[in-house]
Amino acid sequence: MTLNHTMSNPECRRHLLPIRDALDILSGKWKLQILVSLLLGNKRFREMQREVDGITARMLSKELKELEMNRLVKRTVHDTTPVTVEYSLTDYGRSLQPVLTALENWGLEHRRRILTEALPV
Amino acid sequence: MTLNHTMSNPECRRHLLPIRDALDILSGKWKLQILVSLLLGNKRFREMQREVDGITARMLSKELKELEMNRLVKRTVHDTTPVTVEYSLTDYGRSLQPVLTALENWGLEHRRRILTEALPV
Repeated sequence: MTLNHTMSNPECRRHLLPIRDALDILSGKWKLQILVSLLLGNKRFREMQREVDGITARMLSKELKELEMNRLVKRTVHDTTPVTVEYSLTDYGRSLQPVLTALENWGLEHRRRILTEALPV
Repeated sequence: MTLNHTMSNPECRRHLLPIRDALDILSGKWKLQILVSLLLGNKRFREMQREVDGITARMLSKELKELEMNRLVKRTVHDTTPVTVEYSLTDYGRSLQPVLTALENWGLEHRRRILTEALPV
């Protein structure tokens, strides 16, 4: 029996702590999807609602408020008639790009794998 | 007013779909933490429970079962007295390393930022 306990518990915690910090802000079904949608361009509320499939207006509003509070997303009111509201990523929100790219790449591989496995042998 | 709608809706969906696929498997508070814990070495149940701060045995068991079902985690029963059970990442689980590293790096920056902001000016 070979166990591969290379990391002591404190060292493991050192790696887990930043993951927890990140997940505190990002976890759940919607936030990362909203951030990807905004990474691809500034959006208005309705546009985001169309893009992030399945999200309700109420949930989108709640999630945007939390992302704003954590300074990842900026809400800009334009003085047009009628007034228009636009959402964009802050520089801080943009700093999540490597996370989003890694997740997207993994998701692509995952989908490819599932589709291959689903084929009849 | 300048809007930066560089991506058309179908193009946005193309990026969102793999993110959704990945989140279907990984979202929630615990799974990524469990995967990080296993990335750092094979573990027994109790060890993981100690490392992933705040998780209950019931939740850890549920999450491990789901990760096993999705073939990210492998459960090995060793024929010792008493029997020991060890959890490890599959190669597929290991392929999440870039995601976990990106998340950890961002979490580290995030913590640094929060701590700096919390300092009195």
